[in-house]
Amino acid sequence: MAGYKSGMTQNIYDDADFFAGYSRLRRSMQGLDGAPEWPALRALLPEVRGLDVVDLGCGYGWFCRWAAGQGARSVLGLDISARMLERAARLDADAGLHDAAIAYTRADLETLALPEAAFGLAYSSLALHYLENLAGLLATVHRALLPGGRLVFSIEHPIYMASRHPDWITDAQGRRAWPVDNYQVEGPRRTDWLAPGVIKQHRTLGTLLNSVMRAGFTLEHVEDWGPTAAQLAAEPALRDERERPMMLLVAARR
Amino acid sequence: MAGYKSGMTQNIYDDADFFAGYSRLRRSMQGLDGAPEWPALRALLPEVRGLDVVDLGCGYGWFCRWAAGQGARSVLGLDISARMLERAARLDADAGLHDAAIAYTRADLETLALPEAAFGLAYSSLALHYLENLAGLLATVHRALLPGGRLVFSIEHPIYMASRHPDWITDAQGRRAWPVDNYQVEGPRRTDWLAPGVIKQHRTLGTLLNSVMRAGFTLEHVEDWGPTAAQLAAEPALRDERERPMMLLVAARR
Repeated sequence: MAGYKSGMTQNIYDDADFFAGYSRLRRSMQGLDGAPEWPALRALLPEVRGLDVVDLGCGYGWFCRWAAGQGARSVLGLDISARMLERAARLDADAGLHDAAIAYTRADLETLALPEAAFGLAYSSLALHYLENLAGLLATVHRALLPGGRLVFSIEHPIYMASRHPDWITDAQGRRAWPVDNYQVEGPRRTDWLAPGVIKQHRTLGTLLNSVMRAGFTLEHVEDWGPTAAQLAAEPALRDERERPMMLLVAARR
Repeated sequence: MAGYKSGMTQNIYDDADFFAGYSRLRRSMQGLDGAPEWPALRALLPEVRGLDVVDLGCGYGWFCRWAAGQGARSVLGLDISARMLERAARLDADAGLHDAAIAYTRADLETLALPEAAFGLAYSSLALHYLENLAGLLATVHRALLPGGRLVFSIEHPIYMASRHPDWITDAQGRRAWPVDNYQVEGPRRTDWLAPGVIKQHRTLGTLLNSVMRAGFTLEHVEDWGPTAAQLAAEPALRDERERPMMLLVAARR
């Protein structure tokens, strides 16, 4: 990816190669049911009916359509990628959704402004690890929630992201493990996922959770997601996710 | 270690080999200043003056003496090991402490009973990873704290404990990392630390933090401890602790 520098948001999703790769992911094609962590994440959500909902990094809008289907009063889907939002609107139309419950807006989460005390639920799936200014976003989201409103998100696990070479390691005796190194060194991690040079921001688990609390939230649930026995039986490829924590799920209350 | 079985507390500290090894550790000989995480843990403590304090797994009593020196009204040091408590009392005497501020009591944290609303601070250093019934202890401690009282503890990090072979791994290219495997499989981990067959209880980070919250506590701080630049300069052997999270520090409020 050319042109990325610190302080400027990297819009990888509008990169043609990245977008092409992303569109072939199961979670892109099949939506929420293609994401094995969705049942666990859904279990952390409040009753959505009647809430005003904001989705931070909404991608193809799968969660937005789900929330609208659950009876959310309004759903605001935010994403930095114009391609993503076009696809989201097309999928809405394909699903026969033509009412005004869902609105998509192009927005950079690094510099997001939101109305105050306007939402009952802020949701984010696998987006926050791209942000440099996570503390700023969390403060904005806290102000944007009603008292008692919820923040529920998934994020790449710090253990998944920390290493200089984040890939399975095998020693001479055939021991295979997920490598942890460089853990305490916070900052950018460059990976080649779908396109070369995707930049994520590594934070320790403590830094991440403390950022949520410092923004004024009360933590309610923290989960290093792993597959259930039933998921493993149905999809043996998930076996690796018994070995390492890949995603972190967090629920908090304003 | 002979004789350990599930449901029974393993009192490794009264094993002669273990105790001999333990007594030679820097943190045993030098006390709090021999523990590199102490400054970070201390920063999480409330003002101790005037508080009634309980130390869960007090060992040689270093924290108890520190708390008494800070003006705690009373300090109750609990440990399962009679040898540890004898040594603690001897060190109190060596330090010229003959008043009644510190009391040591032999107690099994798996089945601990404490008076209700009796303490302003519950502290624990590197003891809770031995417990099978952590939820039970946390419920007991919650009831034993005054409203607003604090729980501050360190525990071996789940990432430090999870692997089937918890030791640095190096691949054919010379990449060296801390191994993570078996992470989602909670339960006993047998290690040979100071004595063969020491049993620790692995929990995921989510399970650990959720146990604290389910017991009624509000989380206030979570920290994957790592050495500061000054500590690294003074003690290069701490370099490994930049690479992996070895300990978790947690502060919570009743």
